[in-house]
Amino acid sequence: MRHILVIGSGKSTAYLIQYLLDKSTSEKLHITVGDINIDNAKAMIENHKNATAITLDVFDQKSRQEAVKNADIVVSMLPARFHIEVAKDCITFKKNMVTASYVSNEMQALDQDAKDNGLVFMNEIGVDPGLDHMSAMQVIDSIRDKGGKIILFESFTGGLVAPESDTNLWNYKFTWNPRNVVTAGQGGAAKFLQESTFKYIPYNRLFRRTEFLDVENYGRFEAYANRDSLKYQSVYGLNDIKTLYRGTMRRVGFSRAWQVFVALGMTDDSYTIDDSKNMSYRDFVNAFLPYSPTDSVELKFRHALKIDQDDIIWDKFVELDLFSKTKMVTLDKATPAQILQKILLDSWTLKPTDKDMIVMYHKFGYELNGEKHQIDSTMVTLGQDQTYTAMAKTVGLPVAIATLAILNKTITTPGVQIPITKEVYTPILKELEEYGITFKEKHVPYLGYNPLNI
Amino acid sequence: MRHILVIGSGKSTAYLIQYLLDKSTSEKLHITVGDINIDNAKAMIENHKNATAITLDVFDQKSRQEAVKNADIVVSMLPARFHIEVAKDCITFKKNMVTASYVSNEMQALDQDAKDNGLVFMNEIGVDPGLDHMSAMQVIDSIRDKGGKIILFESFTGGLVAPESDTNLWNYKFTWNPRNVVTAGQGGAAKFLQESTFKYIPYNRLFRRTEFLDVENYGRFEAYANRDSLKYQSVYGLNDIKTLYRGTMRRVGFSRAWQVFVALGMTDDSYTIDDSKNMSYRDFVNAFLPYSPTDSVELKFRHALKIDQDDIIWDKFVELDLFSKTKMVTLDKATPAQILQKILLDSWTLKPTDKDMIVMYHKFGYELNGEKHQIDSTMVTLGQDQTYTAMAKTVGLPVAIATLAILNKTITTPGVQIPITKEVYTPILKELEEYGITFKEKHVPYLGYNPLNI
Repeated sequence: MRHILVIGSGKSTAYLIQYLLDKSTSEKLHITVGDINIDNAKAMIENHKNATAITLDVFDQKSRQEAVKNADIVVSMLPARFHIEVAKDCITFKKNMVTASYVSNEMQALDQDAKDNGLVFMNEIGVDPGLDHMSAMQVIDSIRDKGGKIILFESFTGGLVAPESDTNLWNYKFTWNPRNVVTAGQGGAAKFLQESTFKYIPYNRLFRRTEFLDVENYGRFEAYANRDSLKYQSVYGLNDIKTLYRGTMRRVGFSRAWQVFVALGMTDDSYTIDDSKNMSYRDFVNAFLPYSPTDSVELKFRHALKIDQDDIIWDKFVELDLFSKTKMVTLDKATPAQILQKILLDSWTLKPTDKDMIVMYHKFGYELNGEKHQIDSTMVTLGQDQTYTAMAKTVGLPVAIATLAILNKTITTPGVQIPITKEVYTPILKELEEYGITFKEKHVPYLGYNPLNI
Repeated sequence: MRHILVIGSGKSTAYLIQYLLDKSTSEKLHITVGDINIDNAKAMIENHKNATAITLDVFDQKSRQEAVKNADIVVSMLPARFHIEVAKDCITFKKNMVTASYVSNEMQALDQDAKDNGLVFMNEIGVDPGLDHMSAMQVIDSIRDKGGKIILFESFTGGLVAPESDTNLWNYKFTWNPRNVVTAGQGGAAKFLQESTFKYIPYNRLFRRTEFLDVENYGRFEAYANRDSLKYQSVYGLNDIKTLYRGTMRRVGFSRAWQVFVALGMTDDSYTIDDSKNMSYRDFVNAFLPYSPTDSVELKFRHALKIDQDDIIWDKFVELDLFSKTKMVTLDKATPAQILQKILLDSWTLKPTDKDMIVMYHKFGYELNGEKHQIDSTMVTLGQDQTYTAMAKTVGLPVAIATLAILNKTITTPGVQIPITKEVYTPILKELEEYGITFKEKHVPYLGYNPLNI
């Protein structure tokens, strides 16, 4: 028996644990699922004979180290900030480790220790980051293997609601942390490369500089720029690239309406509104509009944002009950972002029957034998229900497959890693296809940003 | 002989030192002016028999304490962050102190020490803060003395260029720290009270929510909201006030054009542009606009900001050479705000013959005997030349008059003070009138924000 310790049994672990349980007999695995709430862990393993649920408080050193010591490999599905203590234990007790989170500075600092001990510390192996790295690097490497030179890479991911559950005017529901959706794009200008020039978009214009993306069978999406499109430029070996852009996908029209919240200041998370507890939704909106004893909040809102009488954007706000005099904020000393999140949760919470959807879109432009080419690669995964979500599938399966591959010494390169090498992505992407996670590649004319090419 | 130590002999000290020198014989004063660059200090005192220039490095404890010990009162005209060491010495050697700066937390912490030693530590006694406190409190106290209840207080100050030197399309030149002008309004939503409701304006809309102000003989101005209009609410005793608003004055049209810089992200001071050194002004503008191989920067700019062909705002940008291909940024790794400041300095630097202007506008709404009233109070001061500026006059004279009044024991209340009591403002405002710094009060109908009252 090989022992796998999975720490955390939250939202995104259903497929991960299921995969490991399904393989447990043939692969001789015993899976221990540790959670601060043991009932969560128990629900996940459903009395499986090759699994044990334990109470695990990551801040309790004794029980945490005990659990790590007994494992052959450790998977941390905790929020990113909680990984580091587990990672240090993995160095101490010489265990491999897998997470789906971004490599933090603290994690990166363990690189030499991991190498010295011959340990694989695999990170960023969920969906985004994760599946995006793997699917992009597979195409980039294949272009390079043919002798091509990459000149453009654009990559977009969206966590959205499945078409059959797409029932509101925003074509959006919260399928992941609502707070991150409300504050998305804040903290500095978005930076990217377009035809060899650096471009910058301030937060106040981020949601007005979108581009459209068409996905076969799923229609049209739009994307706004991520904060730092250049983060993986050197890691991917794209130092000479002309265009490098990473973005977040929404259904068409979302961003133009969202921009209204940004413009009014409703997404600000940096100060609190003193009397928020006793405000109606209407009062909240009115706090960002000039005082008037006669004009309605609705007209002031239209006037401030220049929303014409017949603009369809209007119904989106009405649908949210934004002008309700009776719905109350009830949150004490809340930030505008917290209040907006509450208002949105009324309308954008998934129903028990709702399904989610993950969409990914890559564009690769390259030169080969003096000619320019482009490959567009798209992936759509639909959720099954509210436990077996598309998010849980696209995060959990890459983590699970990587975990087993490390245990089976298919993946062996030691150190703090992300999945960008053939050794890692080839077997994982191949196995993901069996689970229906497939990328459709299409050769299209290279357009770049030059209309003369059209 | 009474000894006055003035530390710092920069921009705003000309009138201050002149006033003290003029009174030095009749009042038996000896003035020591200390500056890190003794030539500055010498230039200020022009070999006056009752004055000495010394080299004073505020970080050199020995010479600083020596200078403080020999004085009867200390005036610090250094940047605000350098006052605190001087203030501690003043406690040690039991000296009164005067500054024109906002009371810092460190300064406030010395309040009890100052009181225990019977020392007056007078702060915020320049123009803004300073003259605004005094002129406002005089009217507020007079209304209260009649039994009136203040329901509205709005206060606006502008450091501008005098009409005769007002020669560009922005009607603006830098008469004070340019950096503060470029980054004005950043760091959080502006907050104020309007008819008993809190109102919030995010930075991205701050310069589009201005109001107009007409000043007799000087025409129309506009004002945008300061960050925290409520800062002095309790200090002024205005806890039950309905409308409280503080703002910054510009000539009409400035803010609508400035908003274009804000919208594009050109005022951002939070990140640097890597290749800024080799950028033309045009390249800088283009970094905030989408790439196009064919469309001009001008058309992309107009399109992004929705600037019509015949909008007069356009000439303001052309006047700044914003689209120049030949004028270079030359600054290495500069923030957008630093680059914008450089561009503006080309056009907005005062010429040797230019004069500045300080404008102040207060509105006081109050209830008396069941009726509503309003007093508007305005003040305009013009500079004489580039040494005897309106800024130096309105900052320096209140400081100078207060210094002599403390020395002569007209102002005696000990502790860390700001000039909001009758003891302080009555003699100072009276003497300022002799220097032409006068407030014109006008009784006008109370309008508030209710058009039904009109």
